[in-house]
Amino acid sequence: MIKEFTNAPEAREFMYEGKAKKIYTTDDPELVRIYYKDDATAFDGKKRGTILDKGVVNNRTSGIFFSYLEDNGIPTHFQGLVNEREMITERVEIIQVEVVVRNVVAGSLAKRIGLAEGTVLAFPVLEFYYKSDELGDPLINESHMKVLNLATPEELEIIGGMALRINGLMVGFVEPRGLRLVDFKLEFGKNSKGQIILADEISPDTCRFWDLETGKSLDKDRFRRDLGEVEEAYHEVLRRLEVGLNG
Amino acid sequence: MIKEFTNAPEAREFMYEGKAKKIYTTDDPELVRIYYKDDATAFDGKKRGTILDKGVVNNRTSGIFFSYLEDNGIPTHFQGLVNEREMITERVEIIQVEVVVRNVVAGSLAKRIGLAEGTVLAFPVLEFYYKSDELGDPLINESHMKVLNLATPEELEIIGGMALRINGLMVGFVEPRGLRLVDFKLEFGKNSKGQIILADEISPDTCRFWDLETGKSLDKDRFRRDLGEVEEAYHEVLRRLEVGLNG
Repeated sequence: MIKEFTNAPEAREFMYEGKAKKIYTTDDPELVRIYYKDDATAFDGKKRGTILDKGVVNNRTSGIFFSYLEDNGIPTHFQGLVNEREMITERVEIIQVEVVVRNVVAGSLAKRIGLAEGTVLAFPVLEFYYKSDELGDPLINESHMKVLNLATPEELEIIGGMALRINGLMVGFVEPRGLRLVDFKLEFGKNSKGQIILADEISPDTCRFWDLETGKSLDKDRFRRDLGEVEEAYHEVLRRLEVGLNG
Repeated sequence: MIKEFTNAPEAREFMYEGKAKKIYTTDDPELVRIYYKDDATAFDGKKRGTILDKGVVNNRTSGIFFSYLEDNGIPTHFQGLVNEREMITERVEIIQVEVVVRNVVAGSLAKRIGLAEGTVLAFPVLEFYYKSDELGDPLINESHMKVLNLATPEELEIIGGMALRINGLMVGFVEPRGLRLVDFKLEFGKNSKGQIILADEISPDTCRFWDLETGKSLDKDRFRRDLGEVEEAYHEVLRRLEVGLNG
């Protein structure tokens, strides 16, 4: 079920280093090689640290989610895992908008609209944030995106619709595994054919997972809020996702 | 052209005091009497002061704008001026959303999306803010409004459409009078028939006006940013609006 990439093209030129990953070109202009790091940051980079083996866990966790979403009709950049810390993905131009879907109130939403953390939302909340460290990744709306030329209304329609479908699929995947999907962040990109596909990663760095029974955070909030047992949480999520998977 | 209300019903019970106005019931359950104060606040009430005769100027300025908009097919709460500081309006239940339309980058938009103040926008930007002093009037999007039950998608459609039409009408009114309409805030309410109509006020408290030639601020930014000549700016806007009006 988890796609692996055999005879993966070697990494050639270093292309880009993000907070949690490095990206390298390969000899295939359509493919890049992504290396998952252990670096962790929070609060727009103001808090920095390392989570032991996070890169290993998140590479595999993302591979599981991307494979599952592909199997369910969501086009993603994922082409297959190469080794513990690397995957091959389709090369895309990233749309400079972070798409957030929320099922339960947590984090910045509690501050913004004044509902208590843990409030279950009657409808999923869909938010767009402008990817800009300088500006602190501000919430933006459709007219801001139009003015900044970040996405056309048609692209936005596609992205919003995909994000909500992905939410439904992910909830269906993680709930039987004892995880509540509180909220998560997605990024989309355009491939060489101009198709919009899911990109970036899906892991406890980008999703809030709470234990369904105890409500315990099993995600980056443990790092953000100094809750301890950070590594254990990442491993625990992966362990639960592996249940019932073949290959 | 400016509607006056003859034989206006007397103020009966005090109903509500906002930052710039007081509202009183009348013997007619459909009508309220609004008194415009000289009090000025900024930055969520952190800055407070008085602008001499602001109440007089804003009562008349709002009367001019509301009369003009009504004449052009926009339903408003305005029923007519009573005296220097008071008007009669239809009683409405205010929708707890501030609607902002922007033609030029200024204020919080510059901080949010990183474009310089004064940048002319290719399209008007439409924003919704949650009316909550406690939360600092945060920017919200359609899904927040749905979750908070502030407005239905149909109501939002009506409000957004009206706000953009009002923007076009207002630009057409103030530009020949040497004023650039940079941005403005509107509030809407529902009357007893359930109709959504324009409410609140339209004045240099709620609009940014720049002199078309010099770019000089002629609005509350003079108070917010301690630019001096505050009273003069409010009077100057009213003086220009009166040009060519009869009655």
